[in-house]
Amino acid sequence: MYIRESPREASGCMRCDLRLLVAALGVVWGSAACDAASDTTLQCLVCHETVTPGVFHDWTASRHAKRALAEVLAEPEPSRRFGRLSATDVPESLRAASVGCAECHTLNPEKHADTFDHNGFKVHTVVTPDDCATCHPVEREEYARNLMSHAKTNLEANPVYHSLADAANGPQRLEGGRLVQDRPSAMTEADSCFACHGTTVGVEGTRSRNTELGEMDFPVLTGWPNQGVGRVNPDGSAGACTACHTRHRFSMAVARQPYTCSQCHQGPDVPAYKVYMASKHGNLYASHGNTDDYDALPWVPGRHISTPTCAVCHASMLSSPDGRVLSERTHAYSDRLPWRLMGLPYAHAHPKSPDTTIIRNQAGLPLATELTGEPASEFLIGPEEQAVRLGRMRQVCLNCHAGGWVGGHFAKLDHAIETTNQSTLTATQLLLQAWDSGLANGLAAGASVFDDEIERMWVEHWLFYANSTRLAAAMAGADYGVFADGRWQLSRNIEAMHQWVDRRQRPTGGQ
Amino acid sequence: MYIRESPREASGCMRCDLRLLVAALGVVWGSAACDAASDTTLQCLVCHETVTPGVFHDWTASRHAKRALAEVLAEPEPSRRFGRLSATDVPESLRAASVGCAECHTLNPEKHADTFDHNGFKVHTVVTPDDCATCHPVEREEYARNLMSHAKTNLEANPVYHSLADAANGPQRLEGGRLVQDRPSAMTEADSCFACHGTTVGVEGTRSRNTELGEMDFPVLTGWPNQGVGRVNPDGSAGACTACHTRHRFSMAVARQPYTCSQCHQGPDVPAYKVYMASKHGNLYASHGNTDDYDALPWVPGRHISTPTCAVCHASMLSSPDGRVLSERTHAYSDRLPWRLMGLPYAHAHPKSPDTTIIRNQAGLPLATELTGEPASEFLIGPEEQAVRLGRMRQVCLNCHAGGWVGGHFAKLDHAIETTNQSTLTATQLLLQAWDSGLANGLAAGASVFDDEIERMWVEHWLFYANSTRLAAAMAGADYGVFADGRWQLSRNIEAMHQWVDRRQRPTGGQ
Amino acid sequence: MYIRESPREASGCMRCDLRLLVAALGVVWGSAACDAASDTTLQCLVCHETVTPGVFHDWTASRHAKRALAEVLAEPEPSRRFGRLSATDVPESLRAASVGCAECHTLNPEKHADTFDHNGFKVHTVVTPDDCATCHPVEREEYARNLMSHAKTNLEANPVYHSLADAANGPQRLEGGRLVQDRPSAMTEADSCFACHGTTVGVEGTRSRNTELGEMDFPVLTGWPNQGVGRVNPDGSAGACTACHTRHRFSMAVARQPYTCSQCHQGPDVPAYKVYMASKHGNLYASHGNTDDYDALPWVPGRHISTPTCAVCHASMLSSPDGRVLSERTHAYSDRLPWRLMGLPYAHAHPKSPDTTIIRNQAGLPLATELTGEPASEFLIGPEEQAVRLGRMRQVCLNCHAGGWVGGHFAKLDHAIETTNQSTLTATQLLLQAWDSGLANGLAAGASVFDDEIERMWVEHWLFYANSTRLAAAMAGADYGVFADGRWQLSRNIEAMHQWVDRRQRPTGGQ
Repeated sequence: MYIRESPREASGCMRCDLRLLVAALGVVWGSAACDAASDTTLQCLVCHETVTPGVFHDWTASRHAKRALAEVLAEPEPSRRFGRLSATDVPESLRAASVGCAECHTLNPEKHADTFDHNGFKVHTVVTPDDCATCHPVEREEYARNLMSHAKTNLEANPVYHSLADAANGPQRLEGGRLVQDRPSAMTEADSCFACHGTTVGVEGTRSRNTELGEMDFPVLTGWPNQGVGRVNPDGSAGACTACHTRHRFSMAVARQPYTCSQCHQGPDVPAYKVYMASKHGNLYASHGNTDDYDALPWVPGRHISTPTCAVCHASMLSSPDGRVLSERTHAYSDRLPWRLMGLPYAHAHPKSPDTTIIRNQAGLPLATELTGEPASEFLIGPEEQAVRLGRMRQVCLNCHAGGWVGGHFAKLDHAIETTNQSTLTATQLLLQAWDSGLANGLAAGASVFDDEIERMWVEHWLFYANSTRLAAAMAGADYGVFADGRWQLSRNIEAMHQWVDRRQRPTGGQ
Repeated sequence: MYIRESPREASGCMRCDLRLLVAALGVVWGSAACDAASDTTLQCLVCHETVTPGVFHDWTASRHAKRALAEVLAEPEPSRRFGRLSATDVPESLRAASVGCAECHTLNPEKHADTFDHNGFKVHTVVTPDDCATCHPVEREEYARNLMSHAKTNLEANPVYHSLADAANGPQRLEGGRLVQDRPSAMTEADSCFACHGTTVGVEGTRSRNTELGEMDFPVLTGWPNQGVGRVNPDGSAGACTACHTRHRFSMAVARQPYTCSQCHQGPDVPAYKVYMASKHGNLYASHGNTDDYDALPWVPGRHISTPTCAVCHASMLSSPDGRVLSERTHAYSDRLPWRLMGLPYAHAHPKSPDTTIIRNQAGLPLATELTGEPASEFLIGPEEQAVRLGRMRQVCLNCHAGGWVGGHFAKLDHAIETTNQSTLTATQLLLQAWDSGLANGLAAGASVFDDEIERMWVEHWLFYANSTRLAAAMAGADYGVFADGRWQLSRNIEAMHQWVDRRQRPTGGQ
Repeated sequence: MYIRESPREASGCMRCDLRLLVAALGVVWGSAACDAASDTTLQCLVCHETVTPGVFHDWTASRHAKRALAEVLAEPEPSRRFGRLSATDVPESLRAASVGCAECHTLNPEKHADTFDHNGFKVHTVVTPDDCATCHPVEREEYARNLMSHAKTNLEANPVYHSLADAANGPQRLEGGRLVQDRPSAMTEADSCFACHGTTVGVEGTRSRNTELGEMDFPVLTGWPNQGVGRVNPDGSAGACTACHTRHRFSMAVARQPYTCSQCHQGPDVPAYKVYMASKHGNLYASHGNTDDYDALPWVPGRHISTPTCAVCHASMLSSPDGRVLSERTHAYSDRLPWRLMGLPYAHAHPKSPDTTIIRNQAGLPLATELTGEPASEFLIGPEEQAVRLGRMRQVCLNCHAGGWVGGHFAKLDHAIETTNQSTLTATQLLLQAWDSGLANGLAAGASVFDDEIERMWVEHWLFYANSTRLAAAMAGADYGVFADGRWQLSRNIEAMHQWVDRRQRPTGGQ
């Protein structure tokens, strides 16, 4: 079952020995966590219970640690509460024990460039979606359709997007009075955009390290640590399930609460969490969410939860009190999204493929719209698919709201998309004027379109203010879309861009 | 008791039938919620328990659902815990049952333009303060004295205020190199300022909609959904009790926690929630508020709550351990406020009337002060009334603080009002200079005073920075008033306004 | 034991009388709180239970109120759970009773300028670190080594720092077209920077006040109320233990939760709390921190806490399950900090002494680096001490993370320090250019270096953006360091500063 290079003792005895050893360490184990663990995992725990107690305790609190998989699979679905874990998926070899250290960290060793020899076991540090897919193939497949799983490659391989990241992160220096911006280092990228988008985790040889338990060899990982959603892993897979299902508790209740999403979705570019917390939904979550049940499966609106979280609207399976599925679970969050609200620079219908590097607009740029806003339609879903996705989202709303309410809500969102796109068009016209007048070096000059002052004002227009305004409309946190980072900022910025261009175009420079 | 157009079965039998129907749907009801509901409400629930389970479950968790009103009224006040609900107020016709769907949504049908025929009942969508006043007349009367109940009309009918909203929300376009800002659409207004201030909810005919239970007719509401505090309702009343007492749990515990207020009071124009969360009070609320009791009545400082929330200081009745009332409950929050800190553009004594459209300063503008800060005194409360209101607020502080502490605190607030008003005066002088020099089109030109670049800098001066600084002083969240959005921003903005005007006034344009 | 001027009744009888009096007031006391209190404290409580019920209830919930100190000291350490309270420290005279009002507010009366006669007792309002040191001498000594205990004097006595505070807080007025900024009043300072840094609390005579219990005399305190960390107290001591150990519960659980630190550490100058809440650590704290135990002693990672808070990493004693101390408790938070991330203007190795007024760079300025970034090394800890402190911090991380993870994390922090310092150097070069060209009045002119527009842009560069970026790297809240207030703002600000200088240097003023 596990890759192990030293001869193996008789299982029964070893378990006793290990247990005694653990007892000798003066530690009281949760019996369930101990009883169901495999022999190999027990050997991991003997040391790691002491050297990384936080990891150990998190794991003992997880569902993974509770019971042997065979026991779980023998129970009927509602009581085992393991979502879509199915008897056909779980390999025979993993069924005898619970899911412990060894079950994940020794899977697929030959595929893992980060596999190393650790006390006689072939262990790898970075557990990946391909590892998780051993038992959770449906989730892995869904997630591969999620934009997020491409977050790293989409940002890296799209020259326009990458150039925006460079304008943010690149070091600047003065060279003979001119300001020069260099490309950011890989480490700066890993510490900024790619912290959320995901790094490429590579292996650069081995280093010996003095540990609590003596000198040991470990692989030297680059781009590590990182739990970005589109991380490229040492086994070639993309994504990090642990971005949301935090190691080593892998708690569904954590993933279902808004704080998980807030790690990457509260900045001014995508302030979904802040908008949520300014909405009635967020108010109720904060006020009495602590009496809701974020661990239930099936999950019944009203019975288990009194207000939606991010997961409720975008991901989770929702059921009726009598067990019917009202909303299907999905790890491809665009399944319920007709629009891509996050405009670069305009909001538009959702892309068909999570790989957005394939998109080209009429001008040949890798953008989903023209600079004037017209959509690159062949790469985007059409009205019919939009209606299907809106229907899925409406189904969630209808648990608590009448049809008229829901219709009125989405009419406001449609209108906000239209008006903010219009505002971005005006901002873009001012930018084009600056480029035409030679006040900034833009597309025609082959220069970055994001680094001059007027270009940065334009970036903030759509990236911060238009996006925030649309999110405020989408999530009923209207107050956020007024003065926090919304319509006031949109109109003020247009005025400031206009002044910037206007003053520089006047011959006298006065006023 | 209810408006119903089809013949009515014998109550006893119908209840059995309904209960069987409910059982047939496979649903386990909370018995209390079932037992106390009226026959009409039971008929609503038969469908709505399934089609809007979130609404159903919220209602079952509410006090409204617990018992028949007659039972409640028969108990002595402390145990029934229903605040000021009194036997003289509750109509005879409503006493036999609990307060369910029908009790609110079929009240006063003739007054409601949104009344429609729904399965034989005359139902209206929008429950209003006039509906709630059926049982809660004192609260309704208090709230009518609250600025908030006029939030919609004050903003709409005051040309200066409305012009600020237009400058924020109006779409901008380039017309021959000039920047033109149009008036915002009604839908944009509903999705921005009026989301909190309240829309006018109107009825535009009827639309047929395909529901889970077949084709049905519903009124088409404009300005809907909206729960703004000053909403103008289809029965002509103003306000939305549900802004704070969220449907359909109407939980006092929610209204008493700061998240409810934060929905409209965390933006940079009025960051009360953010200041609170930066204060010692907010720290204690976040640290051990979960062990406090936000549902108690009477509410005893120390016993039930260890730190104030918004409601404690501004609204709630507070009692001593032996039952004396220390602070009277009020839904007119200015009852405890000597000052209106939110300056437009200066802070000033609180207006006498919640209808601020009647105010005129010496210059004839609908503002509570001159542009130079002198108060329009005849419309504002005088020093004596200010002392009375400060006394009420001090009474709350004194539950936990000695007189010297409280005195020192309010001395700092008075000083902050004075210094921030002084800073606004300097900013205003710079604006007047810009107007005089023709650098912006202001009052004299009959133009908006909020749309030019220098005007927008001036708006942010008082609307964001001066207001925030005063709130930080008022609520002991001093840190917020330094670098977050406070004194640093005030002084930096004056410097920036000065540079803006100065550079444009120089003949050469250099420097 | 206590200073008391009227004759003292026999203790037994007086206790009975007091208890009857309390009963007559209709109040049910927690028996423990009553039983263990000293006679003098009982006399305080007779009134203060009624006049300041919040204070009374907070105290009854405190460890101070639970038992007589003699009882506590008789128990073995783990069960008494009183940290480092030791039998050798606690004076004999205080052992018979619990710690109540009198035990603290009548200590060291001769040292307290704020001592006054209060119903026959010599009472002082402001309890100070020197008072607390009576039982907690180790904590007091540690805290004296903490930068925070010097926060008031360092800010006040360092002319550069103070001049920054003046630029933020000073009132500005127009004088013949020129903008003049005056020094802020003491009250404005107390309401801004010194709210966190601490005021000097002085005594200015006595005032008679009408209280609930009649006319009484109280000292008039200046700089009051204030709980700033470096407060200078009426007994000459520095600091306020109550800044974190909030009166009158003095709850360790409150001090260990992040909200306490957030009172002074969430503004843009030092957004530690916001970065934390954007990190995985903050996510877990918010998601399941409510099931963690913030009151345990010893405190065992994994067993009691599933994620770190500010206190875990910077202050608290952490223990292994078998009782070994993994991390020593410290109230000198720099014990675990190799770097001072908060640059003024550059980040640098931590100062040796908490008194930073003694620092002089080569240019003679009271700054820890030159204006070009070179450290004033003789005043800063060297690489060896840095390694020791990093080792202490790493020890905390290793409870949950492997060595490779921790190493990768701190490599990113080192890189962020380097790149943000480099960015600050570029900003400083632009400032020097402005000074050289006479576009702003700087060092050479003997003027404030923080008040001109370009200077304020420079201030925000290091105070807001560079600091935030470093904190985001240090605390694994990378998203905060991109668009929230991080690298985007750094690069945009350099661009804006460059434009500011460039345009003003052009002869024609065009462009």
